[in-house]
Amino acid sequence: MEQQVIAKAQKAKEAARRLAYLPTDIKNNALLAMADSLIKNTEKILEANEIDVRAGREKGLSRALIDRLLLTSERVADMAEGLRMVASLPDPVGEVESMWTRPNGLRIGRTRVPLGVVGIIYEARPNVTVDAAGLCLKAGNAVVLRGGSEAINSNTAITNIIAAAATGAGLPEGAINLIEITDRAAVNIMLKLNDYIDVIIPRGGAGLIQTVVQNATVPVIETGVGNCHVFVDRYADLEAARRIVINAKCQRPGVCNAIESLLIHRAVAGEFLPGILAALKESGVEVRGCQRTRDAADWVKPATEEDYAGEFLDLIIAVKVVDSLDEALDHIYHYGTKHSEAIVTENYTRAMRFLNEVDAAAVYVNASTRFTDGGQYGFGAEIGISTQKLHARGPMGLKELTTNKYIVFGQGQIRG
Amino acid sequence: MEQQVIAKAQKAKEAARRLAYLPTDIKNNALLAMADSLIKNTEKILEANEIDVRAGREKGLSRALIDRLLLTSERVADMAEGLRMVASLPDPVGEVESMWTRPNGLRIGRTRVPLGVVGIIYEARPNVTVDAAGLCLKAGNAVVLRGGSEAINSNTAITNIIAAAATGAGLPEGAINLIEITDRAAVNIMLKLNDYIDVIIPRGGAGLIQTVVQNATVPVIETGVGNCHVFVDRYADLEAARRIVINAKCQRPGVCNAIESLLIHRAVAGEFLPGILAALKESGVEVRGCQRTRDAADWVKPATEEDYAGEFLDLIIAVKVVDSLDEALDHIYHYGTKHSEAIVTENYTRAMRFLNEVDAAAVYVNASTRFTDGGQYGFGAEIGISTQKLHARGPMGLKELTTNKYIVFGQGQIRG
Repeated sequence: MEQQVIAKAQKAKEAARRLAYLPTDIKNNALLAMADSLIKNTEKILEANEIDVRAGREKGLSRALIDRLLLTSERVADMAEGLRMVASLPDPVGEVESMWTRPNGLRIGRTRVPLGVVGIIYEARPNVTVDAAGLCLKAGNAVVLRGGSEAINSNTAITNIIAAAATGAGLPEGAINLIEITDRAAVNIMLKLNDYIDVIIPRGGAGLIQTVVQNATVPVIETGVGNCHVFVDRYADLEAARRIVINAKCQRPGVCNAIESLLIHRAVAGEFLPGILAALKESGVEVRGCQRTRDAADWVKPATEEDYAGEFLDLIIAVKVVDSLDEALDHIYHYGTKHSEAIVTENYTRAMRFLNEVDAAAVYVNASTRFTDGGQYGFGAEIGISTQKLHARGPMGLKELTTNKYIVFGQGQIRG
Repeated sequence: MEQQVIAKAQKAKEAARRLAYLPTDIKNNALLAMADSLIKNTEKILEANEIDVRAGREKGLSRALIDRLLLTSERVADMAEGLRMVASLPDPVGEVESMWTRPNGLRIGRTRVPLGVVGIIYEARPNVTVDAAGLCLKAGNAVVLRGGSEAINSNTAITNIIAAAATGAGLPEGAINLIEITDRAAVNIMLKLNDYIDVIIPRGGAGLIQTVVQNATVPVIETGVGNCHVFVDRYADLEAARRIVINAKCQRPGVCNAIESLLIHRAVAGEFLPGILAALKESGVEVRGCQRTRDAADWVKPATEEDYAGEFLDLIIAVKVVDSLDEALDHIYHYGTKHSEAIVTENYTRAMRFLNEVDAAAVYVNASTRFTDGGQYGFGAEIGISTQKLHARGPMGLKELTTNKYIVFGQGQIRG
């Protein structure tokens, strides 16, 4: 098994050497060919997917998981559309970010180059296979994919189709690789292949991400976990606050940029609480609150320490009335995961303090935390949302799939 | 012991929260106060250093190691000067690298913020204590230092002096921390403190770096290993080539940006070899070569596979005559460590191919690889040279000790 995983990573590394300086046109044509081939082979993909879905039902997977796994011809068309969109984005590779001349005449340029080989470890969604491969290729990287065992037939079919289309369009063999071994041990081998893989990006739940972080010797970009807050300040426009809280909690509660807790300044708690609690209830949200919150509505359950610390990823919210901006900042510092944090306020100085003092990938004044997203930020697409500080923080687009290389133009200079 | 290491890291994390938004003036004043205090306490530092040097001599440390360990009043003055220089550099924190407005009116800014807590693991040089602390503080980071056991008395004295000066100048307690436990187990504890340490930078030999990479769960920036080459092309200005080769090999052979191998195009080997071999010999360099090199001088020893693959870090060089630019590129791809690579050529197309196709932190045309250095690049100072692709690649200055934060100015926007 080890040999099989290593062989794929080796092939990827060889491909990466050529991919690194492939013209953008060839990469774009390959992405378009991959899209066309997905459409042409929709039937084949759906057949493979049916095997996975049937097996998943027999295994008793939850309805939510089956839904993630399920492909339809519309979903295949969406994947193809995604590749066409990536083809239309500007190529980050070759950009000279800056160039300067030293007193000794050396001209030094900082250019963008691909990372090399990117490993993606993900769970049940077969569309990640296409999304991740497309973004990595556009940024000049070879990719080693390792999807969840539930989607193995879908992923194998998809990878065969897009890899063949890619090489047909002039990409080197080995640019797209799927580890077909569903044994978990294959992941552990992948995590240690420092000689072949330059970076690993896990995409999935907290369990998967922790396994990767704890066991990888290859550099990792951590993604995903978000215990996000909205703080409704004493100077908030309460109508804006209501809209932002409902949007940040309810628009898509299962994702990392949805909020898990609501903090309310005590000066507006009396006015704000009844309305927001009613609106949350109406939206089907279970509310767990501090004593002051519970005094405002008898149906609110008591919030525990765990409620403030964890991620519900569901229609549940923890609510706390705080005495001051400082208490809100302390609460966020203590419980937050440095993902996305928002304040609602009309007070300039307090807005600036929140922006300066909250340490998170994204800090908002008077907007929903749900905007933390590569598409919403205008990056065109995203490979994930980094929650670590190294390399990339927040939504990662094509640029975050590259690194830099210094190119130096001399005229015979030596160091004195 | 574990509790002691964790306690220091915790203190650092608390300090980092305040350091993150401390005005530049306060940080600069602290750096200047640290410099003054080093000078004022020179005697105390030299006394502590004497204990280390004596113990080192008794332990039989090599002369080179003793020289690294040894402090003099000049060296203390140099450390102080280094801090003053860092104070004079622009502060990367707070820089808004870009800001744009989305169609929905959201204004999104990408700003530079500190990494948080930086762990530095290093070996015998006590000056690293001051250099690393100064750079980390200037970029708004708290630092957890762990120096080699040989320098423990020097490091403890220095840290006490600069930490007291820093807090005296308004920096939070815990901004500068030294792990005083010389047991190796303390390093292993540090490597897993993901809750408190944001990044670890090892500075030292290949053994130390590999220990850190293999055992850390905290993100690591790998530094240092360099198997660098100069390729003398068939179209080289051979006089420039001679100067560059001698400089890259001999100016300071023990550092990572010195070359270990010389590649020569066969078309110029006959003309170039006799002169360069004589010049190397004259500079005291031992030459190990391929058969064609040995044909040019009978005193050249045969080069082995290991000679081409390893780092001598000494006055030894491996020489190979190659048949083509492609063979040179393949050799560098196969044996290089992606640090610094140079071509000497007057041919434009071949120079451009080398710049494009060689994957390394720094690629040179007609200049010595010895320029890969933060000072030489104009960064003012460097915390190390990254040889990984994640986060930073090549010389790392103050900017590489920061990460980004998105600040988002809304007017009540919610996601549709």
